Amino acid sequence: MLSEDIPDIVVGRLPIYLRAVTQLANAGKEITSSRELGLYLGISSAQIRKDLSLFGGFGKQGTGYHVETLRRKLQQILHVDEQWPVAIVGAGDLGRALAHYRGFQARGFEVCAVFDSASHKIGQQIDGNERLTIYPMDMLPEVAQAKNIRVAMLAVPAEHAQHVASLIIEAGIRAILNYAPINLIVPEGVHVQYIDPVIELQHMTFYLGNQQP
Amino acid sequence: MLSEDIPDIVVGRLPIYLRAVTQLANAGKEITSSRELGLYLGISSAQIRKDLSLFGGFGKQGTGYHVETLRRKLQQILHVDEQWPVAIVGAGDLGRALAHYRGFQARGFEVCAVFDSASHKIGQQIDGNERLTIYPMDMLPEVAQAKNIRVAMLAVPAEHAQHVASLIIEAGIRAILNYAPINLIVPEGVHVQYIDPVIELQHMTFYLGNQQP
Repeated sequence: MLSEDIPDIVVGRLPIYLRAVTQLANAGKEITSSRELGLYLGISSAQIRKDLSLFGGFGKQGTGYHVETLRRKLQQILHVDEQWPVAIVGAGDLGRALAHYRGFQARGFEVCAVFDSASHKIGQQIDGNERLTIYPMDMLPEVAQAKNIRVAMLAVPAEHAQHVASLIIEAGIRAILNYAPINLIVPEGVHVQYIDPVIELQHMTFYLGNQQP
Repeated sequence: MLSEDIPDIVVGRLPIYLRAVTQLANAGKEITSSRELGLYLGISSAQIRKDLSLFGGFGKQGTGYHVETLRRKLQQILHVDEQWPVAIVGAGDLGRALAHYRGFQARGFEVCAVFDSASHKIGQQIDGNERLTIYPMDMLPEVAQAKNIRVAMLAVPAEHAQHVASLIIEAGIRAILNYAPINLIVPEGVHVQYIDPVIELQHMTFYLGNQQP
């Protein structure tokens, strides 16, 4: 099946499967099943089998999935069997916390540049790390090209996010992980994913509010 | 319709509608339509009408939605017309960035306690703010009860997240926003939402990897 034909909601579940399978691999498990994965993830085993079948067969009926094979196949499907150089745009509290975060590299991403518009931050090295030098915004096109950056994490205040997103796109970057709590308007062919803790909190208070404390 | 009968995937879209409608309200817009919201959010207008119709009528055929009415109604449905006291568990880089974040209060949440297990952090006040005093983990049950905390943000390293989640649940908290990149196993009736940037990045590299740079 061509990747354009995979429903986006299925694509969104693949990284969750990869995370779970990686946890199982790290725990030394060799074989798993759609039932085990389903219980673990709170997704029906039928759904998991259906999702994975879109990419060809991974398991044999009755014998389950080989954990390491499934892990590698999912990494290939998501193209994280190689490292993606990533830029952080915005070197405030959040941008710095992202730069410090040690969880990207093992999962396919490497922060290799940080950008900010505040002149007093330019040239600083986060953690004294040369790879985490803070560049001025107007160097984004040049640095993105030099370092082959195709993915950016946008960590600027909401009121600047749309403008800065446009600069990111002008620099040739086609994937933005947006931490600002606004919907971005982007041209076709640009991918945006959102991280907004309030969206997730409100999802839960929908249920909590209907229960006795 | 009873809230238990609303599909979770619809519940997950309601906060996104609320965020968009709030943006429109802040921009001074008085009337909107499912078509306008749909273009803005990349969701079909039919889907938006269908989702909202589960909660009764919001708009009249042909006249659209009154922005402020829709905003208030969504706030009520999500129970964020009042403030929810929230705990941050884990006072590392991420926990501190969350404590600094100014975007919670206007959207229904107030951070009112921070917890950590490291003895040298206990008693510190983040930003010199008394409400952001760092408490030891063993005070979680007492503080949660005193401050009526029913929601926690979990910002500890992955290897501790499952254990700390259990402590949060033992303290009577039934909603956890988990920032650790692992799937938590929790009892029925406990709500967990996940924030994991790598999941979102991998969602995008699925598409990027299939395109020419």
